[in-house]
Amino acid sequence: MDCENNLVSSSRPIQPTKMEHFEDQHGKEHDSALSVNRGVSQPPTVNPHFRRVKRHRLTTDEYMKGILEGNITILSQAITLVESLLPEHYHQAQEIIERCLPHSGRSIRIGITGVPGAGKSTFIEAIGNMVTRLGHKLSVLAIDPSSERSKGSILGDKTRMETLVHNPDVFIRPSPSAGSLGGVARKTRESIILCEAAGFDVIFIETVGVGQSETAVHSMVDLFLLLQIAGAGDELQGIKRGIMEMADMIAINKADSGNERRAEIARSHFANALNLFPMPDSGWKPKVYTCSAVEGNGLPEIWNGIEDFLKFTKQNGYYQQNRNRQSKYWMYESINEALRESFYRNELIENEIERYEQLVLADRKSSFVAAKELLTLYFDSIKR
Amino acid sequence: MDCENNLVSSSRPIQPTKMEHFEDQHGKEHDSALSVNRGVSQPPTVNPHFRRVKRHRLTTDEYMKGILEGNITILSQAITLVESLLPEHYHQAQEIIERCLPHSGRSIRIGITGVPGAGKSTFIEAIGNMVTRLGHKLSVLAIDPSSERSKGSILGDKTRMETLVHNPDVFIRPSPSAGSLGGVARKTRESIILCEAAGFDVIFIETVGVGQSETAVHSMVDLFLLLQIAGAGDELQGIKRGIMEMADMIAINKADSGNERRAEIARSHFANALNLFPMPDSGWKPKVYTCSAVEGNGLPEIWNGIEDFLKFTKQNGYYQQNRNRQSKYWMYESINEALRESFYRNELIENEIERYEQLVLADRKSSFVAAKELLTLYFDSIKR
Repeated sequence: MDCENNLVSSSRPIQPTKMEHFEDQHGKEHDSALSVNRGVSQPPTVNPHFRRVKRHRLTTDEYMKGILEGNITILSQAITLVESLLPEHYHQAQEIIERCLPHSGRSIRIGITGVPGAGKSTFIEAIGNMVTRLGHKLSVLAIDPSSERSKGSILGDKTRMETLVHNPDVFIRPSPSAGSLGGVARKTRESIILCEAAGFDVIFIETVGVGQSETAVHSMVDLFLLLQIAGAGDELQGIKRGIMEMADMIAINKADSGNERRAEIARSHFANALNLFPMPDSGWKPKVYTCSAVEGNGLPEIWNGIEDFLKFTKQNGYYQQNRNRQSKYWMYESINEALRESFYRNELIENEIERYEQLVLADRKSSFVAAKELLTLYFDSIKR
Repeated sequence: MDCENNLVSSSRPIQPTKMEHFEDQHGKEHDSALSVNRGVSQPPTVNPHFRRVKRHRLTTDEYMKGILEGNITILSQAITLVESLLPEHYHQAQEIIERCLPHSGRSIRIGITGVPGAGKSTFIEAIGNMVTRLGHKLSVLAIDPSSERSKGSILGDKTRMETLVHNPDVFIRPSPSAGSLGGVARKTRESIILCEAAGFDVIFIETVGVGQSETAVHSMVDLFLLLQIAGAGDELQGIKRGIMEMADMIAINKADSGNERRAEIARSHFANALNLFPMPDSGWKPKVYTCSAVEGNGLPEIWNGIEDFLKFTKQNGYYQQNRNRQSKYWMYESINEALRESFYRNELIENEIERYEQLVLADRKSSFVAAKELLTLYFDSIKR
């Protein structure tokens, strides 16, 4: 039921009214340009001073110049605009995305998942710093909507990745806080475009390995890495079955000194489990690695494995096919969300939907009749 | 992307053109009134003679009269109408549903799930015949869209429930063949209304316990029964965890003579597993039963358990609250689907979407631009 960014804007101006309901639902919109931490438990501004200064809104040209120059502050502001629920931001956000598109697509997009406790933040920090030492620029995005994030997404606690936060070649962006998983996922995907245009050539999309969000991540990455821990019980692996089937690579973390044997047991356990799955469409048989993010062991091998996978799938054509299929998926996702949004943000609907919901909950109107009446209201109003 | 029945019809007439694409996607519409087996691997007509005769289309009054009299042939025809994708059927289908609503809601709605091999068809047949002997009229509906059904839904093979098929107090209806899970689920829910109006006071909704369809079933039943088998490994139970959390009752089937001990072990295993879950909202602690559908043992106890659950939840108010919450859910589902359908059945969109999809797949247009252009096309057209 959440209504996100609007693709319809060019054809149908949205009434800029009744935002209260949305703000209640989705959190009040930040008006500071530096509110990059929106969505995590930090104040909406890094420096309250900026709140006063920032009255001037950047033009699209200014945004584009900043993004293409790799200006992280302006990139942040642009992503904030893309995530915004305010009607007046839609047009400009869409314009920026479209103008970034020709500069996008040239990064390595890697999905990283793992249950809380798998050491995801340490892993991302360690491999992230290694990747930038190899000359890459890294962007770390997240995809967990609020409800899930509280369960343990690393980006909720940036302090756990302190060296990465201060790495000048790294841009970390928490998950958008508002909205359904579908909405959050779409915004994350749009953020990828912007980051790529800003020159980031490695993108990590992290997610907590507990829910539906893996499918969303899978729909926007070139490689999906599942982080596991040495000594995790069978039960855990049972739950992860669907996710394991999506994984192009598994890394057993916490193969720390003294724990190598357990890690090796876990590695062969997972390798055996992977043997039970059919060969993925990519034609690449997923491999299982062990590593110690804390001690830095095994990370170069994992990065080599990532590069091998990409080389292999680029050669056999899967890489591009996969990206094109993802685009098709997102075309439909964008349409469906814009349709919902056009409805749920319609002024008449916003005025009535609560009342109808109550009537249905009180058994005073059937769901069928309620839906039909609301739809009539909506279609009559947009025809006017 | 599938487009189902139309709730928008009263406000926006759908162009009755370009059905070819839909028929390709969803299977050609049956034109015989007796095509109750549509969607399973049987010919679309029971008796080809009827194809010629059935030119006369029933009026809504005739449909209503037949349904309220419990005429199974007319009930079948009405459900076929509800499932129909033909624009000219929408109005009448919606009218019939609305007129059935005051006569609906008075049945016991039971969801039954279990993986292929759990003996679902034998179980439904045995308990179904028992239920009618107790004086009930039983309707067995299904909710698995084509792709899933082929994996083993019992209704794909009616011959396995031969005595139930010939039981005059039983109405069996296969799952609608066409469409997304959401669409199929909505039609199944509408079929419940019609069956209830026709006097069926026990409704089974069966589903294969392998996918997302359990959530859909859960959204339309009063009680959710999970069928398991004695001796199923731990691995299987891992997969079923999410479904187990939804279950109000678990029945271990195949507790046949000689197999009692294994069934008893499975029973205590599942009972222990259930102890790990928090108390459900219903306030009813799920129980685990054993039964042998083949030998008929344990079925009366299961039926008593169902009645106990319903009595308990009716007393504590959960029963009605649950139904009202389901109605709210379906109000939103109906709206969202009608919105999608209005878009994807729009003549201009039907003419263009294939081309756009190809452009996106060939990487010649971005998903963002494609979505935006199609949405502009759509909104311009409905404003005219």
